Amino acid sequence: MLKQDTMAPDFSYQDSRIRELLDCVHEIADLGALGALAEWDQNTSMPAGAGEVRGDQMATLQGVLHERWIASKLGQLLEELSNEVVKQDSFTDADRGLVRETRRAYDRATKLPRKLVEEMARVQAASFEAWRRARENNDFPRFAPWLKRTVALQREIADRLGYDETRYDALLDQFEPGMTASKLDRLFAPIREVSLTMLRRIQESGHTVDDSCLKGEFPVEEQVILSKRLLRGMGYDFSFGGIAESPHPFTTSFGSPFDVRLTIHPDKHFIQPAVMATIHEGGHALYEQGSAQTLARTVLAGGASMGAHESQSRLWENPIGRSIPYWQGQYAAVLEAFPQHFANVDISTYVRALNKVQPSLIRIEADEVTYNLHILIRFELEKALINGDVAIESLPGLWNAKYREYLGVEPANDAEGILQDVHWSSGFGYFPTYTLGNLYAAQIFYALHKAFPNFDERLESGDTSFILNWLREKMYVFGAIYQPGELIKRVTGEPPNPEHFVRYLTNKFEAVYDLPKTTK
Amino acid sequence: MLKQDTMAPDFSYQDSRIRELLDCVHEIADLGALGALAEWDQNTSMPAGAGEVRGDQMATLQGVLHERWIASKLGQLLEELSNEVVKQDSFTDADRGLVRETRRAYDRATKLPRKLVEEMARVQAASFEAWRRARENNDFPRFAPWLKRTVALQREIADRLGYDETRYDALLDQFEPGMTASKLDRLFAPIREVSLTMLRRIQESGHTVDDSCLKGEFPVEEQVILSKRLLRGMGYDFSFGGIAESPHPFTTSFGSPFDVRLTIHPDKHFIQPAVMATIHEGGHALYEQGSAQTLARTVLAGGASMGAHESQSRLWENPIGRSIPYWQGQYAAVLEAFPQHFANVDISTYVRALNKVQPSLIRIEADEVTYNLHILIRFELEKALINGDVAIESLPGLWNAKYREYLGVEPANDAEGILQDVHWSSGFGYFPTYTLGNLYAAQIFYALHKAFPNFDERLESGDTSFILNWLREKMYVFGAIYQPGELIKRVTGEPPNPEHFVRYLTNKFEAVYDLPKTTK
Repeated sequence: MLKQDTMAPDFSYQDSRIRELLDCVHEIADLGALGALAEWDQNTSMPAGAGEVRGDQMATLQGVLHERWIASKLGQLLEELSNEVVKQDSFTDADRGLVRETRRAYDRATKLPRKLVEEMARVQAASFEAWRRARENNDFPRFAPWLKRTVALQREIADRLGYDETRYDALLDQFEPGMTASKLDRLFAPIREVSLTMLRRIQESGHTVDDSCLKGEFPVEEQVILSKRLLRGMGYDFSFGGIAESPHPFTTSFGSPFDVRLTIHPDKHFIQPAVMATIHEGGHALYEQGSAQTLARTVLAGGASMGAHESQSRLWENPIGRSIPYWQGQYAAVLEAFPQHFANVDISTYVRALNKVQPSLIRIEADEVTYNLHILIRFELEKALINGDVAIESLPGLWNAKYREYLGVEPANDAEGILQDVHWSSGFGYFPTYTLGNLYAAQIFYALHKAFPNFDERLESGDTSFILNWLREKMYVFGAIYQPGELIKRVTGEPPNPEHFVRYLTNKFEAVYDLPKTTK
Repeated sequence: MLKQDTMAPDFSYQDSRIRELLDCVHEIADLGALGALAEWDQNTSMPAGAGEVRGDQMATLQGVLHERWIASKLGQLLEELSNEVVKQDSFTDADRGLVRETRRAYDRATKLPRKLVEEMARVQAASFEAWRRARENNDFPRFAPWLKRTVALQREIADRLGYDETRYDALLDQFEPGMTASKLDRLFAPIREVSLTMLRRIQESGHTVDDSCLKGEFPVEEQVILSKRLLRGMGYDFSFGGIAESPHPFTTSFGSPFDVRLTIHPDKHFIQPAVMATIHEGGHALYEQGSAQTLARTVLAGGASMGAHESQSRLWENPIGRSIPYWQGQYAAVLEAFPQHFANVDISTYVRALNKVQPSLIRIEADEVTYNLHILIRFELEKALINGDVAIESLPGLWNAKYREYLGVEPANDAEGILQDVHWSSGFGYFPTYTLGNLYAAQIFYALHKAFPNFDERLESGDTSFILNWLREKMYVFGAIYQPGELIKRVTGEPPNPEHFVRYLTNKFEAVYDLPKTTK
């Protein structure tokens, strides 16, 4: 069993309305879990020919879920409880989170007419297909009408969901409760600045990193064995999870911490993608496995937001998983999996290779210095599309201009430009949570260092359990009880603050690229 | 795509009540498919720690399904249509099948109170656990109270479902529509007779079969590659399916012919289990993949009954899959998978080994001559338990006595005796469909020979498509439109008749064991 604190958050079962609410919520979570299972299956096992009938099954499930949400009992319970849980001390934080997050989902289910939801789902399916083919054939005009339709529907959804400042905020709030575009602008400005500066400093230094040690012949079976070993080393519990292969790595859970699975997509000739995806997805998975068991089958199981989730994948992947102390503790697994290949590669060469900086066209291949610039380009275009009046036809040109400006590279075609990401086939507002994750991750990383002055020494010894235990106790166990802003404050002692990321990036890459130090 | 006859059965969509019925049925089938997916997952991927939460999810789904079934619209539609579809020519056979089979399921859903269904589910879950532990510890008394409870609940279910002759018929009818214990007694008598006679003749002859060529070292990955090749050779379509591993081989589909998957359980030291399970499950899978696409998302997709289904797994496994002509066409795959092992094994030695007869204690390891005797023992005990008044405590003794009588062997303990099968942890009435499958299979096998006088020559050439195409056209495409008795008559020209099995078993094993011929 997962180690569970006896102080784990719990509901105040003595109020019968909380119990009734839980009954409704459990049923909805169970049906949602079956939907998540169908998606997991679709990505890992489902035969190609079953796509259409699976679409029917999912549509039926959505219909049943919609019925459940709009049931009058649920609305009435939420109406009654929303004020009371905040005011009365007899309710617990878990009660408050339950009512708040269930209400968010309820509002979404009731504010959006079923017809709109169904049309969005249909457009998403068609748009995904159009995107896939457009990317294959480097043919943006094929995708453009679907993108136009998606923008229109997303604007309608935003208007129905409501917002205080800009329309984009309504979409953002779906993934990052409480976040707005103007807050992001303030949080992201220093990140933009430090990324551009660091990239320029590295390029001007003329220093380079050789990552050839990560390339060679790496049979998939051995990579999977290595991934399992690294996951065990992180504290991921296979009795509540499993690993599979899929075209794009992802992590999923099914309404509880008891079943949290992840995928990787090994490259036979390059070890980095599977290794780093393992640690990244492992971070997501540890967060999900760490939710209090009491939160199972509620909307509170799992992460507080997409940004909070990404903070954990990034924390494990970058500040921890691309550091020398981590690999001093874990390199034996790499050596054991590929003894001949790594026999003459020392740890610092290996870790330097994992940290190579190279402005590129493709977001998912980006290093830590350039990654957020890719995200900022998308964030700026998304705001313009949703709040402003950008013509779809002008997007490829805008995209390319921003890549020239931020990264000094220019796509030769739209396949490696605006068509590279799947996200816009389904909607808007998700991208910024990646950079938010990096921001939160750096802040949590320094909080960990503060809590454990001998952080590096413990990590070097191969021990990661002190990190996991601290994260569980401070963060994971609470699931979505606290909104992300409050959660980060509880974990680190201060609200989200980009200066930690600025410090982290500066210190780290001054060391990797042997640049003159500008800060302590 | 699956080859689909343009003459495939279809519904008369012009009657609006048929369309309404289909809408209800599609929704129920979609939800059922998600349940089937959850079971598939449970057997192939689900982590051990997720059992309890998965149970909650399944219970929620059952509740939603129950609601759907008892919705008044469905009852009213079935009420109106039940008589009309039979009398009016404007309805198609597909309409008639749809109304009949949906009504069967509706009756079951409405005749059994939700409390009873839930209790049965709970008892099944607990009984399964008790059985598993009882078998592990060879401890029948641990399982006995659960078996007693199951018998009581199954009797109550039978009484509520109703029957004309004996209570057991109500349970049987769930798996084999229209079948009764007295009909089975008549059908099985010659099978009992020929099995006992053939076993005695083989034993008295002193002739033996050496199956040592099937034993050795067979890496699992190679066995899986071989299984895939054999399945492709049978005409199984991987774009609508897939293969996985699980503790017990099984086949499942998800409400349509577009997604039909199977599992195997390779033994590293014995090639027979995976090879024969592949062909057996492949037979089930071909039947499912062959349903008309028009029947997707209805209760008609898939097989006509458990007996009809077993007829296809057995047909492919035994009369075809343990024959010399089949392996003359397919042996290259075995040689390619294990070239060294089989370099000096000729086809007739290999096929003789696959047909070794050996009275044993364990049903699932039984050969064709003794298999039905294992089933008869269970059938006799089931009737006694449900119709009569056998004390649970006396079951092990009865079991052992029957094994002595029928097979001349006696279990040393209950683990290899009465505790060997999982079936009685969930209910009664299923076992006889295995023998019924063998009976149907032999009858269809001879019908195939009649349709293709050069059957063996075509099979020897490696072609199995003529068999699959014939079965699809005559049988598979109809799904559950016709009840099994009628279906067998349509396929073979006569009602179920055990004499074909008698002839088949006699001819085959006189040849395998070089016995004097008693029939042409």
